[in-house]
Amino acid sequence: MKKRKIVGITGIRSEYDIMSSVFKAITNHPFLELELIVTGAHLSDSYGNTVNEISQDNFKIADRIESLLNSDQSSSRVKGLGIQLQGMIQTITRVNPDFLLVLGDREEAMSTALVGAYMNIPVAHIAGGDRVIGNVDDQIRHAVTKLAHLHFTTNEESAERIIKLGEESFRIFNVGNPGLDRIKSVPFLTKKELSEKMGFHIEETEPVVVLIQHVISTEIEEAYNQMKITMESVKEMGIKTIISYPNSDAGGQQMIKAINEYRNEPFIHVSKNIPRLEFINLLRHASCLLGNSSAGILEAPYLKLPVVNVGNRQKGRLHGENVQFVRHDPNEICQAVTKAIFDQEYIQKVKASFNPYGNGDSSDKIADVLATIAIDDKLLIKEITY
Amino acid sequence: MKKRKIVGITGIRSEYDIMSSVFKAITNHPFLELELIVTGAHLSDSYGNTVNEISQDNFKIADRIESLLNSDQSSSRVKGLGIQLQGMIQTITRVNPDFLLVLGDREEAMSTALVGAYMNIPVAHIAGGDRVIGNVDDQIRHAVTKLAHLHFTTNEESAERIIKLGEESFRIFNVGNPGLDRIKSVPFLTKKELSEKMGFHIEETEPVVVLIQHVISTEIEEAYNQMKITMESVKEMGIKTIISYPNSDAGGQQMIKAINEYRNEPFIHVSKNIPRLEFINLLRHASCLLGNSSAGILEAPYLKLPVVNVGNRQKGRLHGENVQFVRHDPNEICQAVTKAIFDQEYIQKVKASFNPYGNGDSSDKIADVLATIAIDDKLLIKEITY
Amino acid sequence: MKKRKIVGITGIRSEYDIMSSVFKAITNHPFLELELIVTGAHLSDSYGNTVNEISQDNFKIADRIESLLNSDQSSSRVKGLGIQLQGMIQTITRVNPDFLLVLGDREEAMSTALVGAYMNIPVAHIAGGDRVIGNVDDQIRHAVTKLAHLHFTTNEESAERIIKLGEESFRIFNVGNPGLDRIKSVPFLTKKELSEKMGFHIEETEPVVVLIQHVISTEIEEAYNQMKITMESVKEMGIKTIISYPNSDAGGQQMIKAINEYRNEPFIHVSKNIPRLEFINLLRHASCLLGNSSAGILEAPYLKLPVVNVGNRQKGRLHGENVQFVRHDPNEICQAVTKAIFDQEYIQKVKASFNPYGNGDSSDKIADVLATIAIDDKLLIKEITY
Amino acid sequence: MKKRKIVGITGIRSEYDIMSSVFKAITNHPFLELELIVTGAHLSDSYGNTVNEISQDNFKIADRIESLLNSDQSSSRVKGLGIQLQGMIQTITRVNPDFLLVLGDREEAMSTALVGAYMNIPVAHIAGGDRVIGNVDDQIRHAVTKLAHLHFTTNEESAERIIKLGEESFRIFNVGNPGLDRIKSVPFLTKKELSEKMGFHIEETEPVVVLIQHVISTEIEEAYNQMKITMESVKEMGIKTIISYPNSDAGGQQMIKAINEYRNEPFIHVSKNIPRLEFINLLRHASCLLGNSSAGILEAPYLKLPVVNVGNRQKGRLHGENVQFVRHDPNEICQAVTKAIFDQEYIQKVKASFNPYGNGDSSDKIADVLATIAIDDKLLIKEITY
Repeated sequence: MKKRKIVGITGIRSEYDIMSSVFKAITNHPFLELELIVTGAHLSDSYGNTVNEISQDNFKIADRIESLLNSDQSSSRVKGLGIQLQGMIQTITRVNPDFLLVLGDREEAMSTALVGAYMNIPVAHIAGGDRVIGNVDDQIRHAVTKLAHLHFTTNEESAERIIKLGEESFRIFNVGNPGLDRIKSVPFLTKKELSEKMGFHIEETEPVVVLIQHVISTEIEEAYNQMKITMESVKEMGIKTIISYPNSDAGGQQMIKAINEYRNEPFIHVSKNIPRLEFINLLRHASCLLGNSSAGILEAPYLKLPVVNVGNRQKGRLHGENVQFVRHDPNEICQAVTKAIFDQEYIQKVKASFNPYGNGDSSDKIADVLATIAIDDKLLIKEITY
Repeated sequence: MKKRKIVGITGIRSEYDIMSSVFKAITNHPFLELELIVTGAHLSDSYGNTVNEISQDNFKIADRIESLLNSDQSSSRVKGLGIQLQGMIQTITRVNPDFLLVLGDREEAMSTALVGAYMNIPVAHIAGGDRVIGNVDDQIRHAVTKLAHLHFTTNEESAERIIKLGEESFRIFNVGNPGLDRIKSVPFLTKKELSEKMGFHIEETEPVVVLIQHVISTEIEEAYNQMKITMESVKEMGIKTIISYPNSDAGGQQMIKAINEYRNEPFIHVSKNIPRLEFINLLRHASCLLGNSSAGILEAPYLKLPVVNVGNRQKGRLHGENVQFVRHDPNEICQAVTKAIFDQEYIQKVKASFNPYGNGDSSDKIADVLATIAIDDKLLIKEITY
Repeated sequence: MKKRKIVGITGIRSEYDIMSSVFKAITNHPFLELELIVTGAHLSDSYGNTVNEISQDNFKIADRIESLLNSDQSSSRVKGLGIQLQGMIQTITRVNPDFLLVLGDREEAMSTALVGAYMNIPVAHIAGGDRVIGNVDDQIRHAVTKLAHLHFTTNEESAERIIKLGEESFRIFNVGNPGLDRIKSVPFLTKKELSEKMGFHIEETEPVVVLIQHVISTEIEEAYNQMKITMESVKEMGIKTIISYPNSDAGGQQMIKAINEYRNEPFIHVSKNIPRLEFINLLRHASCLLGNSSAGILEAPYLKLPVVNVGNRQKGRLHGENVQFVRHDPNEICQAVTKAIFDQEYIQKVKASFNPYGNGDSSDKIADVLATIAIDDKLLIKEITY
Repeated sequence: MKKRKIVGITGIRSEYDIMSSVFKAITNHPFLELELIVTGAHLSDSYGNTVNEISQDNFKIADRIESLLNSDQSSSRVKGLGIQLQGMIQTITRVNPDFLLVLGDREEAMSTALVGAYMNIPVAHIAGGDRVIGNVDDQIRHAVTKLAHLHFTTNEESAERIIKLGEESFRIFNVGNPGLDRIKSVPFLTKKELSEKMGFHIEETEPVVVLIQHVISTEIEEAYNQMKITMESVKEMGIKTIISYPNSDAGGQQMIKAINEYRNEPFIHVSKNIPRLEFINLLRHASCLLGNSSAGILEAPYLKLPVVNVGNRQKGRLHGENVQFVRHDPNEICQAVTKAIFDQEYIQKVKASFNPYGNGDSSDKIADVLATIAIDDKLLIKEITY
């Protein structure tokens, strides 16, 4: 029997972290084979040249498609999307896969969905149906849903939203968040081992804050100030804080500038790109995740990790009881972080909370659907349900 | 008071025919000014170089963006979209408009919506919410709805579908089909004047069929055969038939080939590109519109013109009583055309039928909304209603 | 020993006809392996979709890169070059070849040379050093020489011109025209067999003219008239004439229009794309090659075929005694064709003439150089000799 | 009389510094008008967003064309060239200029020359004919010469080289280096004023070294080490040193990394981007220019400034007696810098030396030629002289 060929598309570290376990499940599946298109920030030095990690993970790379412009203009992302689209068509014409597979709401998701729709190749989309108001990503995510042929949602609420969007129910599979699968498989490091690897000492008993804050696309002009406020709060609290760089979106350079103004504080450690092993163990040992990373919504509840989410990003998303939402206000930030680290009652509540994003077996579920669902006109010709 | 600047995007003759009255209404509006991005088939000799008509209509052209590849591959359209996207960003960065305006479900609609969404410029989309199963255009149209900020629908049913798609109701204006506005303003030609202009004699009393048939994107492989069947029916009936070329989609070249195999029949007249004056008067004098052109659904009811729609394109769309749907079958085609031309009872029913697409005043309504709606965060930040 | 990997780039039928024997020699060479990038007109239905021939010739296709715009604008070629360039980088990054190989002065030659120069991969260029005033191709050809690392010239005069251009002599190999190699290997068809294959009867004794005329890039506006004049001459002479379509350059559509105005003459046979077997046998049996095809300069002397070259294209190129140059003037054209077909003294002179473009063993010579020349800094770092 | 319209293309700060006086001379010329295409590094935050300076200089910007990829791959430059090319065609089609004007050997020069050649618009190229072995720029520069229609050389030697390249002599004007014009017009700052502006104290009597070192495209892998060696030498000497960032070429990020390892030394001052006023006055007050900037070859002799050129970049170029060439060797570097600063005999020799790059009146000469030379077939149709 001929294996089905899946082309996965990956564009940035944060998304690859979630997808790598799916890619692995596909590679290991007896009826599937995988090739990856690596694009966007993965090919950029400024974002750690993470294509090298992908090579080391032994995935077959179908093509490397440079698409990230060195610019902070609001036009850069969509121009990059056009460049990416041109490249992807060439690869997909050559590889001629049975499925395209992509996650989320970044440029990669849109260009993949467009190629699949026009070239009549089914597109499997992970993490559609989510709702994060205040961001172009929200528009892109729902538009991708209208283009894609299969929807793997990470939670029940999103699956229901996709039904409302007029998608036929046979296309929807609520598999949970594949980002959790990967966490299970990451070897455990002690605090001491972690300290050594990261070159930054953490006492056995001292609390650690992890800070990851990205730009909101409708608030690009505020990027510098937003990060400045968070950094000022960090400085005021004086708690050991590990900072990871923001994504390569417009405004990201401004945030990096704000970070750098504080990088000389002794309790602050800045990292362009934290390798996965360190990152997961950091979350395991952390007392609080600060900023607006989707990891706070998606992965932290699995780890029973308190989260302080600053500003409008992630607002309105389905979340566990581990998340506190605050504004760009130093008082609110400090108060919430203090509660997350020192309020024992709150900490117990977080430990007991339910995780709406599943329990770490999404990857195998996705691979099974890709291996078995019929590829026919029913799948290829989309019919809105109303 | 500073006029609001609207950038309209136009990519092909058939769509420009509908949009030109909207463009005119904007130009004439005291609070609006207009520039056009001309792209796609407009710049191609094979499709009549229709950019020249646009120049003659005295619209200001912001840029000409070549994007149409000379190819029949299924990849060509989406590659063209990537090329178009790259070009549009440059123009829109320079012109910095208050609104982007585009119609329908072709590549132009998608690239416009993407540029607007990422660059935070409101996109007004005309003719969203329609439903035409069996075509990538359907996916694109609904995806564009999820990206656009204002929706001008051509009929009530589509407005309701857009509500269901989760769009906020303040964004939706059911204005009717602007293609009808233009019909009103086209000077009347007698059959004799029309004959002379088209270089093809039509007797005062003889019936005339107009044939326009496009490729269905999911049935590209069938393009040649589908057109061949229609041409064979035309040959069998021997009724005077005027044929206009299909759109520049993948498969179009195959259809043109099938047409050319019959072009020597004395009662057949083939035209790459029929100018608007002739086209409208042709519809006014025609006894039947054959094929699968959207004109049959949208414009024919206004003109009380019987339509025979062949195959899956347009199927399931809201239509007046003037449309008969048939399969790619010579018998069905001939029978339906004969009924349309000779069955007096049916002809009377068509004359009395209601037009679900409005009464020819859409353009002014669109211009008024663009001139008066507040451009603020409410408009720019889209919120799905569920 | 690891084989050296050669990536050949091919963009159009006329050039592939010359290159295919080189590609074959590389494939057969024990120390070389070949992959092809297929681009430009090869992927266009309007130009016969000749990528299929390449597949049938069993060459490995590294990627298909659509680049030909459906347009007659003077901007289209260079825009296509930009599109092609973007695609080629992706392929060459993946394949990582030891050499790039390209012929001539079309967009492919320039994009290949640019990729090689910037990516530090040696570029072998065939047919540099030629001189054809009055055409952008001339500028491109010499610019490509300044970018390329190896020069395979088709004649002594061109080799000397490349020396003058400041190229180091170790980079230059005068191998003759590889187009001739291919002629040798094409099976012989009798006039009768040829007639049957082409669906056009040729009497055993009747003279046949082959007409191929391309656009001159600096005379695009004249394209229609130039072809019209030639067609008028053909009509006047009434000699059996086989016409092949012009290249996909700006203006080409105009020429096709002029051709089509005469295609109903009984002694005229028009072909979009003549397969190689038929084409070579057509030249073998033809009495005269008319137009401005480079085949008249390069291949006709090997076949001892009289040529009437019309207009400025090919003017000033090194040629055998078999070529008469005439202006766009019906009298001159008719007189020269008549001489070529009926003047026995002239015909004998042509038969005895010397061929400056070698004797059909270029392909093996090229393969040998690619297999043996050292790939080192001397090759990669170009030094102008003055 | 209708003014001739010139489109100037500018892509990076270092080149704009040279071109701005030419742009000013064109703007001021009664028979010329100017629009600029701003592209490449000018639009990147990482390179100081220098498009803002251009706006402040009040030049009309025809379009902003993002083209710089955020990547250090060897493929990035040529991919950026393809992106740039696509954008430029659109602008030039709209503006329809009488001349294109560009300097040097970067991507902008090549894309401009290609657009001009294919679209039949004359290209005026500044600084062709120079010779800098060991760099793709050398290949690009000579290829651009073969494409361009007018050559403004900066020195006699280059003019002679262009003649040898087969260019017709009427196309060549040896006008000197326009970079010098700009120097004249920059207001003088005292050392104290300069110190204040740069936020870095310079004693009236203390020597100052200016360090600018770029990547060599054939030695990208060495970029980090090369910069490291220079930085180590700077550290050893302990002389006050002002460092400006390298260009946005592949490898540049590596050099920046090496610089940053030393930026905490008290006598080192690092600047992403030194504004022109400060830069020229810095050169006026400097004791030595270190690195491999072309400013050492082109501008330093005008200022009688000693230069220590490290490594292969600039090697073999025509230079005044003010330049010492050294290898990537700390000893050689320290010795040469010491000589430049303290050896009075050498300093006197530099003061008396002749400047092969003219005397600061190139801009007016260029404007005059553009205003008066006939734009006809002689100019447009290039003829190689052999």
